[in-house]
Amino acid sequence: MAAHLDFVKHNEKYVSSFDKGHLPLPPSKKCIIVTCIDARVEPASQLGIQLGEAHVIRNAGGLAEDALRSIIISQRLLGTREIAVFHHTDCGMLTFSTDQLRQIVKDADPGNTAVADQVDKIDFLEFNNLEASVKKDAAFLKDNPLVLKDTSITGWVYAVETGKVTQVV
Amino acid sequence: MAAHLDFVKHNEKYVSSFDKGHLPLPPSKKCIIVTCIDARVEPASQLGIQLGEAHVIRNAGGLAEDALRSIIISQRLLGTREIAVFHHTDCGMLTFSTDQLRQIVKDADPGNTAVADQVDKIDFLEFNNLEASVKKDAAFLKDNPLVLKDTSITGWVYAVETGKVTQVV
Repeated sequence: MAAHLDFVKHNEKYVSSFDKGHLPLPPSKKCIIVTCIDARVEPASQLGIQLGEAHVIRNAGGLAEDALRSIIISQRLLGTREIAVFHHTDCGMLTFSTDQLRQIVKDADPGNTAVADQVDKIDFLEFNNLEASVKKDAAFLKDNPLVLKDTSITGWVYAVETGKVTQVV
Repeated sequence: MAAHLDFVKHNEKYVSSFDKGHLPLPPSKKCIIVTCIDARVEPASQLGIQLGEAHVIRNAGGLAEDALRSIIISQRLLGTREIAVFHHTDCGMLTFSTDQLRQIVKDADPGNTAVADQVDKIDFLEFNNLEASVKKDAAFLKDNPLVLKDTSITGWVYAVETGKVTQVV
């Protein structure tokens, strides 16, 4: 059964006790969380973030480079001044290479040149060392001229086995 | 005070009652949620998604185009077969144009040609009609040759004023 068939039912319960309709657009803690799409990651409960407090950017890996468009919008239009990057243990990004994934996509649709051309243009940005990838992303943000100079930047690892966060940068 | 100073304290409480260390990497409901970074959006509680059930991709606006790298990884390596796109009322993406934001970034660092060159390469992907942007994103996913043909695709609007979701596609 498609998951979306349950959304409305669950949402009706949420709406029945909703009292946060007054929250403003800019995040009250001026903070951006960058983290992975992984189904075991849930920043609000794992970090104690309340509704309205922080922007949450999520992409495969939790990669700063892929988050740059959103970070610029968040900082320049909505006043955030802090970025916390989280990568996590047992991440899918540790399990493949861009070449391998391109081949998987091509093999699933053999002879389709549109698929081959388009997937060859995508860098999937995999990594092979968790702590090194967090440090690389923090450095990317510190050095990037499009990120505001006065931004507080931290880097973290979340352990899906224990629920525990550890600061790396 | 920087928000990250509270993360460890909140996380210690989360860890003390954590019992989900056994969850596997692939999402159990084979579902991807694409939604905005907005601080008032919190898909787990608003849609009733439990830990381990769904991938959550978040970028400014909740845009499918900007989510494509993550969607391919999710579908081809981790078995997801459903995508639900959520945009929301009072979204920051409705409030500016790419040209305006490029100018804001340049004005903050006048004469810096590296900044000007780099920001001019970024399309911030703003939109001016909420329902139309949801439909556009659902169509983008249906037509994109890199998205699997058998994917269930739905499109939704989340109302930050009431907490309510409405299906559009």
